[in-house]
Amino acid sequence: MLSGQLESTNQVILDHLASSVPLIPEVARHLIAAGGKRLRPLMTLAAAELCGETGEGPRLLAGAVELIHAATLLHDDVVDESALRRGLRTANIVFGNKESVLVGDFLFARAFELMVRTGSIEVLGILSKASCIIAEGEVLQLTTSQNLETPQTIYLDVISAKTAALFAAAAEAGAVVAGGDAEKVAAMRAYGLNFGIAYQLVDDALDYQSSGAVLGKTAGDDFREGKMTLPVIRAYAASTSDEERQFWQRTIRDKDQRPDDFARANELMRRDRIVEACLQEARGYAEAAASSLAVFPVGDLRGTLEDLAIGSAERTT
Amino acid sequence: MLSGQLESTNQVILDHLASSVPLIPEVARHLIAAGGKRLRPLMTLAAAELCGETGEGPRLLAGAVELIHAATLLHDDVVDESALRRGLRTANIVFGNKESVLVGDFLFARAFELMVRTGSIEVLGILSKASCIIAEGEVLQLTTSQNLETPQTIYLDVISAKTAALFAAAAEAGAVVAGGDAEKVAAMRAYGLNFGIAYQLVDDALDYQSSGAVLGKTAGDDFREGKMTLPVIRAYAASTSDEERQFWQRTIRDKDQRPDDFARANELMRRDRIVEACLQEARGYAEAAASSLAVFPVGDLRGTLEDLAIGSAERTT
Repeated sequence: MLSGQLESTNQVILDHLASSVPLIPEVARHLIAAGGKRLRPLMTLAAAELCGETGEGPRLLAGAVELIHAATLLHDDVVDESALRRGLRTANIVFGNKESVLVGDFLFARAFELMVRTGSIEVLGILSKASCIIAEGEVLQLTTSQNLETPQTIYLDVISAKTAALFAAAAEAGAVVAGGDAEKVAAMRAYGLNFGIAYQLVDDALDYQSSGAVLGKTAGDDFREGKMTLPVIRAYAASTSDEERQFWQRTIRDKDQRPDDFARANELMRRDRIVEACLQEARGYAEAAASSLAVFPVGDLRGTLEDLAIGSAERTT
Repeated sequence: MLSGQLESTNQVILDHLASSVPLIPEVARHLIAAGGKRLRPLMTLAAAELCGETGEGPRLLAGAVELIHAATLLHDDVVDESALRRGLRTANIVFGNKESVLVGDFLFARAFELMVRTGSIEVLGILSKASCIIAEGEVLQLTTSQNLETPQTIYLDVISAKTAALFAAAAEAGAVVAGGDAEKVAAMRAYGLNFGIAYQLVDDALDYQSSGAVLGKTAGDDFREGKMTLPVIRAYAASTSDEERQFWQRTIRDKDQRPDDFARANELMRRDRIVEACLQEARGYAEAAASSLAVFPVGDLRGTLEDLAIGSAERTT
């Protein structure tokens, strides 16, 4: 059932990339047609279906959610100066930073046009608020960059905002557009939020363990950017000597990096089993996501979402 | 009447810059508190008042319109690599490109949150569509950059989209939120659209004649960027020798510029009275804007808007 819905959501997305300016669909397709797991629209569709609705509204909304996601990816890659995503060169590399900024703006505006077509002002409220929070999370992340003293709570604030807020809104809005009651709406929101936190925890952990081929992006990107993700917070705290602390200070705080530094960082993390600890933390959130579905009757769709959450924390290198 | 409304709209805007991440209001205030003429929210408020409504709805909407404008300015300055705006160093220079991109995203999302509070899905439809068109205009402008063969019609498409679409939407949405009938809504839209075209024509003309102090930005920016604005289209067409054509090809097409080139460009434009011709063209649109107000009864407010339109085309160096 969901896969048919996801198929027509893909069509909604591709239809809405159309523009009188050919460069716009070209840039947008480069990103969107390259794949991606479509997890956010899937969550919207599943939430709507769990609340008894499989019509046009959820599909439009699911398309809007994916367009917001695509817009943030285009802007993120400019901000992070990334070169690889979904196994392809990023749009900022292929087309340029200016093009990525402006096409991101276009997709964001198009997403709101799509939401208007659902006729639900409540949905527009949920997604506009989430879009604010995403931007806040991105800026907060920028201000923690290279700061080795960043507390874990701030890191959780960052990922809750920049990643989990959109999952939460996607799931919540799906339930709302389907006319779900307050309990179901809250359950789907909790599912999306916890799922999103687990998802980003895993992503940040694997950046210290995967090859580029597995990740679909360049492994070690976070390290090279001096991004304060949980593995670095934990590894710095686990330092056993001044020499080790100085290693993190030089590579992350001062961003003075040499060819072998990423290997050394990985070695220190392996010694202290940092990546495993982060994945363990992710599992906690994934289980919380799955549990929040208890308000829905046992069935295939609920089972699919439970497996999706648990599976997200089982991604390995 | 309008000035009181504009005052409380300013308050709406400042209130909505609040964020748990202090850098966001800091970047946003740098731009917004630096001034600006608030022409777009003024148009929203005036349109609403002409349709008999001076309450909370128009103020929220006017705030949203100015936030969209501010978001596009932050992104434009990144895209154009501008250094000066409203007489101050641009946010991208003071805070950085990344910060400007992300705070622009935040303001855009906040604008939609504000519109949700008006409760009017029609208004959301008008402004989300306009936001798409603005981004299309910016991308179209990017694709015409340095192309001396750009026809005047494409230039008009660019400025209609990147500038006039927001003026049109601001005025139209003001009439809609006030419950104006179809004739009044169409009249306000026509006013905003023609006003916006006149406004950008003047802006582009003055870039070849003003000092930075008058413009509040760096004169000659368009020339240095190789932007295909009407003055260059006209001046290139008016070339009287191969040497002159080669001058434009070297400076605009090849962007190979020397210290005296901008002075030479100005000199050629003075000889052919290019700036005057562009300002004349602007006057035509300004008059069309003023005429579109004929559906409203003669009165102070209609007079103010007429003067605003005619005055916009009288800006001199």
